[in-house]
Amino acid sequence: MTDTITPAETTLEELDAIVAAAAEAAGRMAVASPSERGAWLRAAARALEAQRDVLVPLAQEESHLPEGRLSGELSRTTGQLELLAAEAESGAVWDVVIDHADPDWKPVPRPDLRRVTVPLGPVAVYAASNFPFAFSVAGGDTAAALAAGCPVVVKAHPGHPRLSVAVAEIVAAALAEAGAPGGLGLVHGFDAGIALIKHPAIRASAFTGSIGAGRALFDLAAGRPEPIPFFGELGSVNPVVVTPAASAARGAEIGAGYAGSLSLGVGQFCTNPGILLTPAGSEVIGAAAEALASVPAAPMLNERIAAGYASGLEELRGVEGVRVVVDGSTGDAPTPSLLAVDIDRFTEVERLRQECFGPVSIVVEYQDPADVVALAGTFDGQLTATVHGEPGEEVSAELVGVLSAVAGRVVWNDWPTGVAVTYAMQHGGPYPAATTAGTSVGTAAVQRFGRPVAYQDVPQELLPPALRDDNPWHLPRRVDGVWEHRP
Amino acid sequence: MTDTITPAETTLEELDAIVAAAAEAAGRMAVASPSERGAWLRAAARALEAQRDVLVPLAQEESHLPEGRLSGELSRTTGQLELLAAEAESGAVWDVVIDHADPDWKPVPRPDLRRVTVPLGPVAVYAASNFPFAFSVAGGDTAAALAAGCPVVVKAHPGHPRLSVAVAEIVAAALAEAGAPGGLGLVHGFDAGIALIKHPAIRASAFTGSIGAGRALFDLAAGRPEPIPFFGELGSVNPVVVTPAASAARGAEIGAGYAGSLSLGVGQFCTNPGILLTPAGSEVIGAAAEALASVPAAPMLNERIAAGYASGLEELRGVEGVRVVVDGSTGDAPTPSLLAVDIDRFTEVERLRQECFGPVSIVVEYQDPADVVALAGTFDGQLTATVHGEPGEEVSAELVGVLSAVAGRVVWNDWPTGVAVTYAMQHGGPYPAATTAGTSVGTAAVQRFGRPVAYQDVPQELLPPALRDDNPWHLPRRVDGVWEHRP
Repeated sequence: MTDTITPAETTLEELDAIVAAAAEAAGRMAVASPSERGAWLRAAARALEAQRDVLVPLAQEESHLPEGRLSGELSRTTGQLELLAAEAESGAVWDVVIDHADPDWKPVPRPDLRRVTVPLGPVAVYAASNFPFAFSVAGGDTAAALAAGCPVVVKAHPGHPRLSVAVAEIVAAALAEAGAPGGLGLVHGFDAGIALIKHPAIRASAFTGSIGAGRALFDLAAGRPEPIPFFGELGSVNPVVVTPAASAARGAEIGAGYAGSLSLGVGQFCTNPGILLTPAGSEVIGAAAEALASVPAAPMLNERIAAGYASGLEELRGVEGVRVVVDGSTGDAPTPSLLAVDIDRFTEVERLRQECFGPVSIVVEYQDPADVVALAGTFDGQLTATVHGEPGEEVSAELVGVLSAVAGRVVWNDWPTGVAVTYAMQHGGPYPAATTAGTSVGTAAVQRFGRPVAYQDVPQELLPPALRDDNPWHLPRRVDGVWEHRP
Repeated sequence: MTDTITPAETTLEELDAIVAAAAEAAGRMAVASPSERGAWLRAAARALEAQRDVLVPLAQEESHLPEGRLSGELSRTTGQLELLAAEAESGAVWDVVIDHADPDWKPVPRPDLRRVTVPLGPVAVYAASNFPFAFSVAGGDTAAALAAGCPVVVKAHPGHPRLSVAVAEIVAAALAEAGAPGGLGLVHGFDAGIALIKHPAIRASAFTGSIGAGRALFDLAAGRPEPIPFFGELGSVNPVVVTPAASAARGAEIGAGYAGSLSLGVGQFCTNPGILLTPAGSEVIGAAAEALASVPAAPMLNERIAAGYASGLEELRGVEGVRVVVDGSTGDAPTPSLLAVDIDRFTEVERLRQECFGPVSIVVEYQDPADVVALAGTFDGQLTATVHGEPGEEVSAELVGVLSAVAGRVVWNDWPTGVAVTYAMQHGGPYPAATTAGTSVGTAAVQRFGRPVAYQDVPQELLPPALRDDNPWHLPRRVDGVWEHRP
């Protein structure tokens, strides 16, 4: 699996065979029990962990990311496979609702009705460049689809093709050994990626990447004779607002934290803060500049991304009214840049609101906090929005309210980078942050890949186990309107 | 409100003002409590009930449906407003998940994260022709959107424009009296309907109707600069399978039940059975024919639908191999027709699988139950699929399994018409039955109109009430992975 040869592009015939295998496995995967689904995911996590010493160096070689970061990312990846295993084992993802027949139901008697969530079927997952483990072949979308009972066909990201093959082989073998009927296919190449989302046997799709590529795939998914859902995370500038009181109380600390968050991963996270609004002349700016000046050059993921960053940065620097605060370098291994502009100019120039993927951020200086509140209401959909404030301030409350209307996650006195994989996480947001209301991180990510089916008056012996009165899988259920957990 | 003048088409200026009013109300509706949302819906139900003597005759006049049917439909409509009021009051629709900060969380410590579902914002609801109350101005989609906290702008169906105005006025007044900041607007006309779904302030859309109109609106919703979800219920032929044992045991009874279900509402329900598969020569066919021959002529909803039915029926009758079993009439008030064809011919002709809106159904005769199981797996997405079988038969179990893969609701020894409004109901199904995985009937319909937002490390006093530790709204919550109901 440590082959040094880049895998060939998948032909359309190969793609057909891979998707057919997924479709073939789908029916048997759909009837697996909570403990079986859990076992698949746990086996995948264990197998990846066992190959850590092979996988991390391979990821380093292809992505140019540092070992510590990649090792942590692998732990996150196995951790989320295990968390979603536990979620499947809990039975929550079946979302069982049972209404017994009721002759007194108003306005008319009701029959016996039982609803369960079943897997949608084969899912196409488009891997991201910037998280070669956590948002790639065995990443969050794949784990969520498997936990939902769906086979997955991953379109490998060309930024780490050999790692993709290695991970796919490890996971597919682990799934098979754990008794899964199938579950993971891999395709390479642009044409295969297009053919995949148009394939009639594919029933849902998930994506993390740019607005351009994501919208193109969204349009293909929606334009099919039978449209399928496209769960896309497309882009976000993750605005941060520093209130006057926070600037006065903790300006230097906030500036240093901002520098760290914007340069993390060479600015190649979906959650790096691209805009910081701060009082004009705030200590935040100087502190951020000082911290950024000492950040060493670090390689970007690949040449294409580095080139895109260089031209995007040049464009931003050329906007009238934009000042260069930290004059970072570009090239394959850039140093961070910091730009500044006043709020009136920022409001006028649409380009300044758009994501520039890489280690640059724009400080927007304001005089009147009311201007920030007004501006915040006009932001496009965001994955995150952050407030650095002090609890007593009225503007803090206003900002939390306004930003919750445009973002999927509102962060207080912390930084948006670092997306915890938990029950309550929401990694999504209004378009273009995401294309649907769901989350791609956390246990709720599983819900995207299911479809409810109701059974009316079906006798016990013909019901799926999830819906039988004796509840052989010990599922949490809502019965006659009342929830029953931990049966 | 009993004006006899047909309302004029809404101009684009009027539409802008109506949508602006909805957008203005949205922010204040979003922060309302469970009891406030419940009060809005209950007020709407009471107000409609109080005007029953005005509304039912008006509906009769415009829809040509009988009084008893319309009176029952109004009860269903007020009943679902009340059920969704109770669902809002239960707090379930906030779907609160709280993760306390945990330094021991693996692989990295987690911050305090709290997620709540907030309303998407103004919803465009496209009313259906065939349920002037239950799938129209104050129907299921409107009730669900209001229960989710969203203002609604309804595109009136031209089949009952004056009833639409009356219901909208009653409901809007009741909402206002109950303290709602807004909540219901109404527009008329094709151009307004198109402009509505493209309006930037509209955040979601819902529809019940034909595949042609639904797909056109779906494409508009998906093609917007910022796409919005389109919850469409487009069409279904609702196949029914009678097994050999059921045919032998209860052929006459099944035939009579089938006749009743297919002719109910002059065949103008989304759930009328359009195809019945039965053993060749079964007693079912004669019994159905006999029952249908005595069904009196009844008026269809309007001339356009009657004309569409006449041409659709003529087309079906002209398909080679199709036999006419009951030679029903067409015209404004048709009598039911029954056609028959053998399974091999049925399998060959795509047209026979498509919905013909009106009182006709096709009996498909089979020799080998295995052929039916194979055919069932090839059906397009369906709202319902029904099996009339006997528990001992192997083919019954196979059919329940195969049909659950193509339908939203599987019915056993009963009929698909009659959609109970309950917790477990699923009224939807794979495309084209529905455009998304959700349901348009029952309490789960509310979930379609929400978007989760997570708050990270936000202090108690800045959190919305739904997420505070003291739980002032007494919401059910998932806390650190464990559900807490009935606090």
